[in-house]
Amino acid sequence: MLHLATPTSERWLRQVDQRLDLVLIDHAHCEKKAASTALNLIFAYVEDQELCRAMTEIVNEELEHFHLVLDLLRRRGIRFRRLTPSAYGRKLNDLVRKQEPARAVDRLLVAGLIEARSCERFQQLADHVDDQELATFYQSLFESEARHHTTYTKLARNYAPPEEVNRRLDELALLEAAIVEQGESEPRMHS
Amino acid sequence: MLHLATPTSERWLRQVDQRLDLVLIDHAHCEKKAASTALNLIFAYVEDQELCRAMTEIVNEELEHFHLVLDLLRRRGIRFRRLTPSAYGRKLNDLVRKQEPARAVDRLLVAGLIEARSCERFQQLADHVDDQELATFYQSLFESEARHHTTYTKLARNYAPPEEVNRRLDELALLEAAIVEQGESEPRMHS
Ligand SMILES: [Fe+2]
Ligand SMILES: [Fe+2]
Ligand SMILES: [Fe+2]
Ligand SMILES: [Fe+2]
Repeated sequence: MLHLATPTSERWLRQVDQRLDLVLIDHAHCEKKAASTALNLIFAYVEDQELCRAMTEIVNEELEHFHLVLDLLRRRGIRFRRLTPSAYGRKLNDLVRKQEPARAVDRLLVAGLIEARSCERFQQLADHVDDQELATFYQSLFESEARHHTTYTKLARNYAPPEEVNRRLDELALLEAAIVEQGESEPRMHS
Repeated sequence: MLHLATPTSERWLRQVDQRLDLVLIDHAHCEKKAASTALNLIFAYVEDQELCRAMTEIVNEELEHFHLVLDLLRRRGIRFRRLTPSAYGRKLNDLVRKQEPARAVDRLLVAGLIEARSCERFQQLADHVDDQELATFYQSLFESEARHHTTYTKLARNYAPPEEVNRRLDELALLEAAIVEQGESEPRMHS
């Protein structure tokens, strides 16, 4: 359902165990970034009213998630601060083709894959941590990120025939899998 | 209350009479731009939780306004499309000082002045047009843009002493007045 080509490895869960605080702070930044991605898509495809409607809803929900994570940090006494982002988002965005309408397809599919990976990691986190509040919180986010994944892949089908979108989604999912398997040393939501 | 140094002139109302369609299309773009300004402020001052809260509300409201204007265009059979923006926003943003915390003060005050001018023009439009639906619509937006103006000028006071913020607001209001008095030939919300 999430179109991911590989599951998250044990390596990431070890990073979570070592620096949960950094993963949580980075998560807040990711929610903010997700809002910005959706708003940028409104600017890029402003004449597509279906897209503008859907992206408006996502902007609102991601900002709500952002504040939910900030509240969680506050309750846990973790100071929210700037953090160097992981290279995951940049590496994926580098895969976006330059010419329209292929560009629209890729931007939507990449956004959809990031949602899918977040979703999958929320589930992993919820199953892994020995902390009921956190498990419940991540369980609750799982559902909306899964819905966002579906929204993005569905919208991509307005910019290319379905079989072409599916083929490109498979291709990008393999590249995404290679990126997460390579991993990163700094503990982050997508390291 | 709106801290504007000059009222909108008859010249703008003549542009409205000539090309109301362009002013309405540009208005939709302005609402979207207002959402983006607020989201950019979250990115720039992400550790300021009061600002992040207030900006999140503004993002949501501006996107709601964006869709209200799109609905209005649809009801009137005006096709929403890209439009070269007026130079108003760029000219104002050029006035923003480069060094923090002066930069924060200026970004917030400039955003507040744009809200104030929109507000004042909505009122002018509502009074001017011989069109009940439009008058009611602009009347309804007036209130939230006035509230946004207050939010921005209030937040600026977290980045400099009140008397300094007031002095800078007076200064920027005079420069804003000069920009609108100069005007622009293409009919736009801020021409
Ligand atoms: Fe989210
Ligand atoms: Fe999401
Ligand atoms: Fe607005
Ligand atoms: Fe506003």
